Amino acid sequence: MRIDGLQYANWSEKIFRQLREGNVDAIHVTISYHENFRETVLNFEQWNRWFERYPDLIIKGTQAGDIDHARDTGRTAVFFGFQNPSPIEDDIGLVEIVHTLGARFMQLTYNNQSLLATGCYEAEDNGITRMGKQVIKEMNRVGLVVDMSHSADRSTIEAADISERPIAITHANPHEWEPALRNKREAVIRAVTENGGMLGFSIYPHHLKDKTECSLESFCQMIADTAAKYGVEHLGIGTDLCQDQPDSIVEWMRVGRWTKEIDYGEGSVSNPGFPPMPQWFKDNRDFGNIENGLTSVGMSDGEVAAVMGGNWYRFFQNNFGPL
Amino acid sequence: MRIDGLQYANWSEKIFRQLREGNVDAIHVTISYHENFRETVLNFEQWNRWFERYPDLIIKGTQAGDIDHARDTGRTAVFFGFQNPSPIEDDIGLVEIVHTLGARFMQLTYNNQSLLATGCYEAEDNGITRMGKQVIKEMNRVGLVVDMSHSADRSTIEAADISERPIAITHANPHEWEPALRNKREAVIRAVTENGGMLGFSIYPHHLKDKTECSLESFCQMIADTAAKYGVEHLGIGTDLCQDQPDSIVEWMRVGRWTKEIDYGEGSVSNPGFPPMPQWFKDNRDFGNIENGLTSVGMSDGEVAAVMGGNWYRFFQNNFGPL
Repeated sequence: MRIDGLQYANWSEKIFRQLREGNVDAIHVTISYHENFRETVLNFEQWNRWFERYPDLIIKGTQAGDIDHARDTGRTAVFFGFQNPSPIEDDIGLVEIVHTLGARFMQLTYNNQSLLATGCYEAEDNGITRMGKQVIKEMNRVGLVVDMSHSADRSTIEAADISERPIAITHANPHEWEPALRNKREAVIRAVTENGGMLGFSIYPHHLKDKTECSLESFCQMIADTAAKYGVEHLGIGTDLCQDQPDSIVEWMRVGRWTKEIDYGEGSVSNPGFPPMPQWFKDNRDFGNIENGLTSVGMSDGEVAAVMGGNWYRFFQNNFGPL
Repeated sequence: MRIDGLQYANWSEKIFRQLREGNVDAIHVTISYHENFRETVLNFEQWNRWFERYPDLIIKGTQAGDIDHARDTGRTAVFFGFQNPSPIEDDIGLVEIVHTLGARFMQLTYNNQSLLATGCYEAEDNGITRMGKQVIKEMNRVGLVVDMSHSADRSTIEAADISERPIAITHANPHEWEPALRNKREAVIRAVTENGGMLGFSIYPHHLKDKTECSLESFCQMIADTAAKYGVEHLGIGTDLCQDQPDSIVEWMRVGRWTKEIDYGEGSVSNPGFPPMPQWFKDNRDFGNIENGLTSVGMSDGEVAAVMGGNWYRFFQNNFGPL
């Protein structure tokens, strides 16, 4: 079973076919960065059109069983998530509404302070806000997973402790392997995994040692080391694949409507766009390379299967519905 | 089995308990008169709060099977509908979105012209609009029932013919029994029932012969006569019970935001508010009176059961999901 914990591609029939060629059974896709509720609904609508248009390639995923159904029928189950709580605006009632519409992950922040928590680019981190505590409780109730991929350390540790259900970092790597701002320090990964949560390994080049030049062996050895340290059962893949996106999209991701100036995020003036992916993971057809790479660094078949999808499957099974 | 095809009460624990006392297994409730999409979402949210607060009395209904579950556990299944297409605004993609949120009936018009069809208070009726034809097709696809209770005759007949699935008039009576503007002429009832559709009998006094003074026997004889004429399998109850609503609500229903002047609808200057209900149907505890009344006018047990809920059950079963 192959499950990808985070993608944000410029979706097309070509990519849906590549998902099948790569035997990807399920993906979690971002459908909101800065969109408010009504704008996010337009993104749900766009996906409804794709499900209607490509019924032989993709199905909407709302529970783990949909992955089995997708596998049995040679399709990919698509699960929705938000990289920002902007879709729920200031209205806790929207938590259940977006869950009913199919949302299964929501980051409490993108890079900035939100109404709920602090993002990883802020200078100060005040932890989970008053509304944040209420929203975590409501997310726990309905089965919407707290995702802290872009959040600051204190906020993430507090979220892991406050949440009565396991949380996720869907797409990031350990800071000790590559000290990127978005990669996670030991205390953060501990807090998430000790509470039963998941870490999805990112292949977004800014999160990789040597970025685009990162070797498959280095990436897979990092996974094996992380498994030894925190337990393989907490680990999955979250490629952060942004295939075929124009650079205007990475600008939207970073800047939204919150500033009139350019913010380069993990990029820079000289490198403002999407970085090229490493040669061993260009698109969804390359999941076999990771699988082989994990075997090559000495992981057992069971461990490889757990990281490639088994762990996400179990996590989806336990966390996408009411308690 | 007892199913009410239309209510719009000022909901409270008292009314939810009366539903149980009346052994009402399912109700279709209006959650939008003039609300736009975002406002309608607030009404879905309000119902989510009630489902969370009164789990021993009510459950959300999305398919006929929920009625069985409600019966088995001594609760009432609540199905949602709109008396106006205002919740989908000018966006056909919202048809599937509101269906996913739980809407199962949508009137193509309230009393006025809408983007889709003509309401019964307009001077001219141009039938189903360009957008109306597209929306009917989309409603058919997802399983959102076309309700023409407040629509003009030509629009209703066209809707019954254009729709590939049966449509409904959830709350109205035959015009020949009581010639109210909102009651339906023979050609209209024929078009709806010949296409497999349903007529729900209203107890809103403006739709009754002698209004509040209407006798139970007259009401039940009218049902028996209608069954003889169109077939009992197309008939149900749609009380239009607006229990405990303040008169400001009937003004909102009639006026919305479309005029600065007062429009009295079925009322008048001297009688602008909600009319008092007939003494034999004050609230949900009185369904037994109708059941007994139908027996008294000579309907068989099977016919009575069909009208009281069996027909709506079958209709829900066939029309609330994708084809």
